[in-house]
Amino acid sequence: MRPQIVLFGDSITQQSFRSGGWGAALADIYSRKVDVVLRGYSGYNTRWALFILNQIFPLGSAKPLAAVTIFFGANDAARLEGTGKRQHVPVEEYKDNLRKMVQHIKSGSPNALVVLITPPPIDVEGRREYARSVLVHLFTRLLDAKLEPSSVILFGKCLYMAIRPRKRLIGQTKQLVYTPSSVFLANELGLPSVDLWSKMQETDGWQKKFLSDGLHLTPEGNAVVFSEVVKIFDKAGFSDLPYDFPSHSDIDAEHPEKAFLQHCPAV
Amino acid sequence: MRPQIVLFGDSITQQSFRSGGWGAALADIYSRKVDVVLRGYSGYNTRWALFILNQIFPLGSAKPLAAVTIFFGANDAARLEGTGKRQHVPVEEYKDNLRKMVQHIKSGSPNALVVLITPPPIDVEGRREYARSVLVHLFTRLLDAKLEPSSVILFGKCLYMAIRPRKRLIGQTKQLVYTPSSVFLANELGLPSVDLWSKMQETDGWQKKFLSDGLHLTPEGNAVVFSEVVKIFDKAGFSDLPYDFPSHSDIDAEHPEKAFLQHCPAV
Repeated sequence: MRPQIVLFGDSITQQSFRSGGWGAALADIYSRKVDVVLRGYSGYNTRWALFILNQIFPLGSAKPLAAVTIFFGANDAARLEGTGKRQHVPVEEYKDNLRKMVQHIKSGSPNALVVLITPPPIDVEGRREYARSVLVHLFTRLLDAKLEPSSVILFGKCLYMAIRPRKRLIGQTKQLVYTPSSVFLANELGLPSVDLWSKMQETDGWQKKFLSDGLHLTPEGNAVVFSEVVKIFDKAGFSDLPYDFPSHSDIDAEHPEKAFLQHCPAV
Repeated sequence: MRPQIVLFGDSITQQSFRSGGWGAALADIYSRKVDVVLRGYSGYNTRWALFILNQIFPLGSAKPLAAVTIFFGANDAARLEGTGKRQHVPVEEYKDNLRKMVQHIKSGSPNALVVLITPPPIDVEGRREYARSVLVHLFTRLLDAKLEPSSVILFGKCLYMAIRPRKRLIGQTKQLVYTPSSVFLANELGLPSVDLWSKMQETDGWQKKFLSDGLHLTPEGNAVVFSEVVKIFDKAGFSDLPYDFPSHSDIDAEHPEKAFLQHCPAV
């Protein structure tokens, strides 16, 4: 059976198969070698993710698990005040939850390579701009539909409530705590990790270059995640894994069965 | 267990998780509903694909198969003369091979939606241009490495042999035979099909707009495949499939377990 790489995380994982996404890029380079399985849950924090852990990684599964990326924290780090409160998870619990995930996965698949990825840096101004642009767009649509002025105002208020800038960390202070927690835990458990928070900030203009709305990734931001994860996977020998079936250039047109007998004795 | 969509085909399927690819786009829109499984085999014709059919679609598999796309023909349609000969499969055998694939899949998964996709139109001039550009690129690299002139000439000859324009149908004549075969077979078996060959040629400038090298797809070409396949899947109700786990907005922060008990009684 073909090995699997499971991508477990929040919206940044869920969106990783969009155009230019890091998940799709992994599926592409490991095609015919490993299956990349998408398990991203938009809006989830580590506390909620624990509820689904057993079903995503059932113990005693026959599927060989080559690797797992665990990529949470952006929602856990939401501010305690306002709408972010329901998603917020204190940093100590965040670290404990990550530890539980790793232990569960390792108990079922001791040889799986588990990689912890920190949340990206967040650009508060970028998130405000994004919320404003969505608001303007929706207002325009409302006005084009010629709704009663009172309805427009009311709807506008509701929209603003719904999409106002996320009550996530002002500046980077809070995020700073979640990122090292994740890296420290990886070191403590002897796991590889990607410090995305630091890595992205090495590049000038990371706010617009890597983030589309102050939080989610542009294609360039996806490329950073892809490149960092592939480094770890390739160090573990993933690119040297054999093809599932013969390359077409190794097939003898007169006796194609030969190539398949070699590669898959069961044929 | 989560249903699967298996994409079975040649290089146009294998490359479908590249940036802008139709396979990745399917994985994205059906995320949290269906797993999209990549089974693309560059250079394969239908004859060779039959050797791996049993392993890709094992009978008695517990995995629920929601759908399969079968997307072969570009290699089968290679010209009988020259290097294409080894990939060429006569059109009657091509049709028989497709029929065997459908019968095998349906015998294991009677409810699976099987979709036949015809090869795209081929732009012979585009393939020549591509081959020339690769050749020039490789020559430049050779010259930069300052090889002996004799080696450069020899290597150049070999390169040209290796990458000269594919001996695939001059013009569209041959392809015309494979495309209706695939569509007729789908009709005969009561299956949905995508007549990509005709669909793409409805757009002026399809040669450059949809094809990157006269055969493989640009992001715009990928978008055509995606759009046609999604139409069929959505007609079958795929977009109405439920999420695997609750939406984050349905989770009560004080009692998160409630949402998970509803959605996954086993928790």
